Amino acid sequence: MSKVQNTYLFAKGREFPSFEGMTKDEMKSLLGGKGYGLYLMHCVLDLACPVVLNLPTFHAHGLDENGRLPQDIVADVRAGLADMEQVTGKKLGDPVNPLLLSARSGAKFSMPGMMDTVLNIGLTDAIVDTLAKGELERFWLDSYRRLLQMYGDVVEQIHEDGEDPFEKVLHTFKAERNAETDLDLTGADLRELISRYKAVYVRNDREFPQDPVEQVVRSAEAVFRSWGNERAVFTRSLEGISDALGTAVNLQEMVFGNKSVRSATGVYFTRDKATGIKSEDKLDGTVLFQAQGEDVVAGIRNSLPMEALLEHPDPAFHAIYHEMKETGTRLEEFLGNMQDTEFTIEEQDGHPVLFWLQIRDGKRSAKAESVIAANLCDEGIITREQAVMQVNPERFEELLFPQLNPAARDAATVITSGSAASPGAASGMVVFTQDKALELAEQGKPVILVTVMTSQEDVKGMKASEAILTSTGTKVSHAAIMATAWGIPAVVGASEISIDRAAKAFTANGFTVKEGDVITVCGTKGGVYLGEVATIIPEDLDPRAQQIIDWAHEIKALDVRANAEAGETQAAYDNGARGIGLFRTEHMFLGDRLPFIQEVLFGNDEAKAKVALEKIFEISKGDFAQSMRIMDGYGVTIRLLDAPLHEFFSHDADMEREENPMLGHRSVRMAITHPAIPRTQIRAVLEAAYELKVEGLDPKPEIEIPLVVVPTEVAAILAVTTEIATELHAKYGVWVPYALGIMVETPAAALQGEAMVAALREQLPGVAPEAHPVHGFASFGTNDLTQTTLAISRDDADKFLPLYVEQGFFAHHPFVSIDPRVERMVKIFVDEARAVDPEFEIFICGEHGGDVYTIERLHLIGLTGISMSPGKVYRSILKAAQSQIVHPRA
Amino acid sequence: MSKVQNTYLFAKGREFPSFEGMTKDEMKSLLGGKGYGLYLMHCVLDLACPVVLNLPTFHAHGLDENGRLPQDIVADVRAGLADMEQVTGKKLGDPVNPLLLSARSGAKFSMPGMMDTVLNIGLTDAIVDTLAKGELERFWLDSYRRLLQMYGDVVEQIHEDGEDPFEKVLHTFKAERNAETDLDLTGADLRELISRYKAVYVRNDREFPQDPVEQVVRSAEAVFRSWGNERAVFTRSLEGISDALGTAVNLQEMVFGNKSVRSATGVYFTRDKATGIKSEDKLDGTVLFQAQGEDVVAGIRNSLPMEALLEHPDPAFHAIYHEMKETGTRLEEFLGNMQDTEFTIEEQDGHPVLFWLQIRDGKRSAKAESVIAANLCDEGIITREQAVMQVNPERFEELLFPQLNPAARDAATVITSGSAASPGAASGMVVFTQDKALELAEQGKPVILVTVMTSQEDVKGMKASEAILTSTGTKVSHAAIMATAWGIPAVVGASEISIDRAAKAFTANGFTVKEGDVITVCGTKGGVYLGEVATIIPEDLDPRAQQIIDWAHEIKALDVRANAEAGETQAAYDNGARGIGLFRTEHMFLGDRLPFIQEVLFGNDEAKAKVALEKIFEISKGDFAQSMRIMDGYGVTIRLLDAPLHEFFSHDADMEREENPMLGHRSVRMAITHPAIPRTQIRAVLEAAYELKVEGLDPKPEIEIPLVVVPTEVAAILAVTTEIATELHAKYGVWVPYALGIMVETPAAALQGEAMVAALREQLPGVAPEAHPVHGFASFGTNDLTQTTLAISRDDADKFLPLYVEQGFFAHHPFVSIDPRVERMVKIFVDEARAVDPEFEIFICGEHGGDVYTIERLHLIGLTGISMSPGKVYRSILKAAQSQIVHPRA
Repeated sequence: MSKVQNTYLFAKGREFPSFEGMTKDEMKSLLGGKGYGLYLMHCVLDLACPVVLNLPTFHAHGLDENGRLPQDIVADVRAGLADMEQVTGKKLGDPVNPLLLSARSGAKFSMPGMMDTVLNIGLTDAIVDTLAKGELERFWLDSYRRLLQMYGDVVEQIHEDGEDPFEKVLHTFKAERNAETDLDLTGADLRELISRYKAVYVRNDREFPQDPVEQVVRSAEAVFRSWGNERAVFTRSLEGISDALGTAVNLQEMVFGNKSVRSATGVYFTRDKATGIKSEDKLDGTVLFQAQGEDVVAGIRNSLPMEALLEHPDPAFHAIYHEMKETGTRLEEFLGNMQDTEFTIEEQDGHPVLFWLQIRDGKRSAKAESVIAANLCDEGIITREQAVMQVNPERFEELLFPQLNPAARDAATVITSGSAASPGAASGMVVFTQDKALELAEQGKPVILVTVMTSQEDVKGMKASEAILTSTGTKVSHAAIMATAWGIPAVVGASEISIDRAAKAFTANGFTVKEGDVITVCGTKGGVYLGEVATIIPEDLDPRAQQIIDWAHEIKALDVRANAEAGETQAAYDNGARGIGLFRTEHMFLGDRLPFIQEVLFGNDEAKAKVALEKIFEISKGDFAQSMRIMDGYGVTIRLLDAPLHEFFSHDADMEREENPMLGHRSVRMAITHPAIPRTQIRAVLEAAYELKVEGLDPKPEIEIPLVVVPTEVAAILAVTTEIATELHAKYGVWVPYALGIMVETPAAALQGEAMVAALREQLPGVAPEAHPVHGFASFGTNDLTQTTLAISRDDADKFLPLYVEQGFFAHHPFVSIDPRVERMVKIFVDEARAVDPEFEIFICGEHGGDVYTIERLHLIGLTGISMSPGKVYRSILKAAQSQIVHPRA
Repeated sequence: MSKVQNTYLFAKGREFPSFEGMTKDEMKSLLGGKGYGLYLMHCVLDLACPVVLNLPTFHAHGLDENGRLPQDIVADVRAGLADMEQVTGKKLGDPVNPLLLSARSGAKFSMPGMMDTVLNIGLTDAIVDTLAKGELERFWLDSYRRLLQMYGDVVEQIHEDGEDPFEKVLHTFKAERNAETDLDLTGADLRELISRYKAVYVRNDREFPQDPVEQVVRSAEAVFRSWGNERAVFTRSLEGISDALGTAVNLQEMVFGNKSVRSATGVYFTRDKATGIKSEDKLDGTVLFQAQGEDVVAGIRNSLPMEALLEHPDPAFHAIYHEMKETGTRLEEFLGNMQDTEFTIEEQDGHPVLFWLQIRDGKRSAKAESVIAANLCDEGIITREQAVMQVNPERFEELLFPQLNPAARDAATVITSGSAASPGAASGMVVFTQDKALELAEQGKPVILVTVMTSQEDVKGMKASEAILTSTGTKVSHAAIMATAWGIPAVVGASEISIDRAAKAFTANGFTVKEGDVITVCGTKGGVYLGEVATIIPEDLDPRAQQIIDWAHEIKALDVRANAEAGETQAAYDNGARGIGLFRTEHMFLGDRLPFIQEVLFGNDEAKAKVALEKIFEISKGDFAQSMRIMDGYGVTIRLLDAPLHEFFSHDADMEREENPMLGHRSVRMAITHPAIPRTQIRAVLEAAYELKVEGLDPKPEIEIPLVVVPTEVAAILAVTTEIATELHAKYGVWVPYALGIMVETPAAALQGEAMVAALREQLPGVAPEAHPVHGFASFGTNDLTQTTLAISRDDADKFLPLYVEQGFFAHHPFVSIDPRVERMVKIFVDEARAVDPEFEIFICGEHGGDVYTIERLHLIGLTGISMSPGKVYRSILKAAQSQIVHPRA
């Protein structure tokens, strides 16, 4: 790798710096994103672009205690400036032909507006005196005024009573002169303004340097320092950008879009950033005549569409329009992505001359993302893999949920907000109880369940609701997980809400909302609004988006299944899931069906219990058959009853309350102590499969044992499955293959890969080989595995875990993305199990299965597949494909 | 190794079988314990011992479906019998000189009385007809009568209405004849009895075989089958003896202690089994003239002391007495242990002849165990190591606790029983509340706290009690662990008890016990008695027992510390603990001190909180200083507050109730969210040490962080310890070294050995090196580690864990002995930590630290030391030494 330099000069006619041996990513780390773009424009694409001296990112960490660049670096900057003089033929401080510069920040990852910029560096009293004598008097005076203002703000950080005094002076002065915009100020006005600006310096005991080199160096230092300003630090913490990266400073020769009415500045996107379409007769972008870059952003005057260039009386502008369009195509072909560009047109010797100031991969809407990627691929510019890589898996979901109409949202009254726990938006009448929810829903009225928190018992009420709002909980609480699973919008942890169930009302921020009042909940952003707010309901998946998913399907190495019960299976299949990774059987015991299980568990009438079990059997069999029918030919993993006993009591009955129910008498432990229940469930799974087989279908039932800690538990269940399979064979005269597996959700199970595989493969003496599972499997329940590995109860973590995450005790929220310690548990199991049986099937079915960070980690570990709520199937297919592209697996 | 034979003949004058290449243990497995003893007597010690044909243990598993020996084995038995005929000059079935045999069981581990025996095999109608014509008429008839009875019972298993018909016939017949004992029956009586016995066979459709070989083979088969009888299976399950071992059958030539008045049988112990003393003029044992072995056991007549032989008119018996005493010495010298022997004296040709029938290491009292071992060592017979190996660590504790006087106990009225949770016995007045306990205790009255279960809040009441009785819970419940720690007898899980707190009474089995009534609780055996039952209070540790402990101290590789607070430290030191492995700081916040911590946690007056913290500081410092003073020069590990918030509420306040408090907001998490508390504790630990240092002592404070899951938690505490150390250095002008460590009680911590060691070694910039810990350490909290690894809450496990243990899902109770999965966690941590730092100190301080199985496992893994409640220090020192002897560690 070539030696890192203290400065890099990008200029036509000079030898380009060498970055031999560096990757694109390393170059971006060194030069910053903007610096890398400038490198490309100069050294690769040969665009018209003003000369640039890049001061790389590492200087941001090399400032001395006064925030100054060390002397040897300053010497290199001086040498670089001298080079720029030579290249441009201009000279710093020359009153006739001065070299003027901008100093712009540019970190590896773009943080628009977060750091500082100084323009027009190099102007001095002497230069302005000279140049302002010509016809551009106003232009030079205005440029100098801007420099004084920016330098005072950015470099000297002059504030008076916490305000920017220059802005105040300008505002007062414009009022005095009855000037509506800057353009209304005359040359004399501007001279007066400059003198008032200088007075600001004087009364703050500062001096504006008349040495252009000092201006440059001080400006560069200030921009470097702005890496550490509050806004930038906050933005980085939000977006997960490392503090260690630093920003670069780009010292670029000024070109002036504000030089004359035949000068302009603007931004141009090579495709439409909203629709993704590349139109032949309409370019996406804006142009602003006689303006500098920041004026476009500030929106001080109406900007014009790009086609304004075509309508200009001077055909030279038409040529510029066509040149930009052709260059856009060339950029895309070269860079393989839609580009967001900044440009300036400066009148030179009476002719408009186009300069490109910046290019970068353009930000775009979620919808445009797929359209652009798929079209670029169809156009032969990028490969399928590259197209898949261009689509953000998490944003993909935005295509699917009803969203608030942005205009309606902005006009709506905000009651409060909370965690955006399940995406989508919906309006409905507020209810506080399940009964009321069901009552109104039956009348066809949309309802929103508002409660402190939800539990298994609220399932029917939740399902009957358009949206869910809770005052406690987090994105990983029951309400959030269930709502996500069912695709119901939810906002949780809206802690400003105070619910008075007796009064049938909640209050928040002075609003009182009563039962029956209509509110709107936005689970995508977390807002809660008074009344009904209009939503936009997306059409079917855009064909281009479907194309991306289809390619991802072909590429990915991980199987993608869904966590779904009978009623959700079709949606899961439609979203692309092939197989069910977790069919929870708890819910089939709730609601109307609760009395049956209560009879079995707590009744003391054996005959009634038998009847109840028969009911459970029939209901279960029907549900299992429905899923296996839809997922014909694909595995359907049905988990045996996982819930603790106490969940089958009502909220009020607190008898049997366990100290730590999470570590209590539940799951396979219940199966061992109450064997009639797993026996009924296993019979229902297998008989459903036998019936489908007789119909000619290809059911693939997979029975999963929850909370296993010892192989002997597997042996106990295996005895039952083989017995029932043998009975069914006698009844139906065929064998239907089935699989038996364990849920790995305890450290004990994770540490016994070898023993668990052996237990699943055990051949029982005297039992037909065909009565045994065709194969064993394991599926990680990473919620519980996280709880046990970290000794953190998800339900109790709100008191300390947010603080832990915020203060960096954990790198990320362990219930959102897999914790490294849990990941190690996973790896220990996988390595041991695969050492015994390289084909052993291993899945994940915890909510982590739909988390993009986690998916990549699991791809690397070598899992067979992942499973997640139906709403996260798309993102998971995409992320699985991206993981395979980045880290190909055989 | 020589080939295993189907039979082994041990007989003088014949070549002894070869066991080349087999260990003593393997020989015992093959021949059984009794068979091995017979081998020694014949082949090694050359004792007078009747010839034996041993049928080894594996035959017990080789019987066919009818319980018969396979034909080839029978052939080998026949050949062995032919050999015996040759050796003895007697013949099976010979009416003049018949070879008569016993068939005795003998498994590897002795299970006295659990399996079957048949004596006098070989007698037939024809033989008895002939021999009963001589002067021994009664003897031969009685011997035949016994054979018919035993064969009918053991081999034919003849029962009538569930009773033994032979015993019934005998009883009726003796009544008819007015015979008080068997000896009162005449020859004619016995002939009549034999005919009635034969009638029993006939009416049960059985036949007594007149072929002696058939008698032998059928008897041997029956004894083999008795390995599987209900009694034997149950005993094995109780004592943890493997079903796979099997019993051997020893066919031994009969000698007859019942042949004449000058014949006898008896047992002889080479030292006193109660005191351990080897007396010169009194042998421990009994002799019974004219009797067979089972008569001694059955106690049908008064047996005599061994010295009866010396008082016999025939000096030949005196010689036998001296021969036995000398042989006893020889046996001990050879076998290195006290021997329990069986002998028979048979009159032959008018002379009493001594035969040794059995030798084995003798069972003895807990007290005798140490005395014998220490004395054998002092006598030069065994080494210190062998002496230490002879003492059972768990029985050693019996020396220390008050025990019920056995006679008084047998006479007392039993109310109920429960789990023997903390050894010792005590009487006192029943109380049901802490307040009442304290009230009566203050009046000097002994009280026994009777409650459903105990919690942290009952600590003062528990400490004020002589004993504790709970109706729920197990040996690992709070009550049990705390009682053991404090040496208070406790019975828990006495589920027959029903407590009515309102009525101030409990009932059980028809008894009603009111507040103030006196009961006695035996925590050693689990009994609960009405009124006061006399106890025996042991003296100071017997000097011989102390000698064993002293040797064990020198031998062991593991450091042995105690889990003790200030008040228990002296007792811990006296018991041999060197260092405190766990000083819990929870209790210092309870009782009188509770209001202080409540003020800090829940008050909203900052000034008051500050005062409360100062109080906590002073109290804590005093307690810490007391422990470090007693343990001067040894490490004292003080754990930062471990309790969850809710423990500082009263029982009634259920606000802040967590779903899973075990996985909740507690321990280091509390320290992070409420930093004033750890800061106060750390200051108290370190300042106590500084004060002692100034006094000239050598305090070794060790600060322990509970429930660590990420290294960043260590960093947070390290910042505080170094800051406080720096302050104290400024105040005292010296540096007092301290250690900082983590409690490893989560899988997350266990998986991060390397990272945790690194975090503990971190040198903070700008902080003096001396302000840092002198070393890091870790201590396993295996209670919590077991809970998290197995996802089993100790408090909730009663519903399924007993069933799991009983049905073999777990090999042993995971909260009593370390579970293999938890052990793997331990090993992962130790291996990783030691790879980074081979000297890194690693301890255990959970209750497993005092469990003998666990101690050996941890010795093997290479822990630095172990720590347990003071009452278990002796056993732990012993077990640590034994582990080192069996598995020497460098």
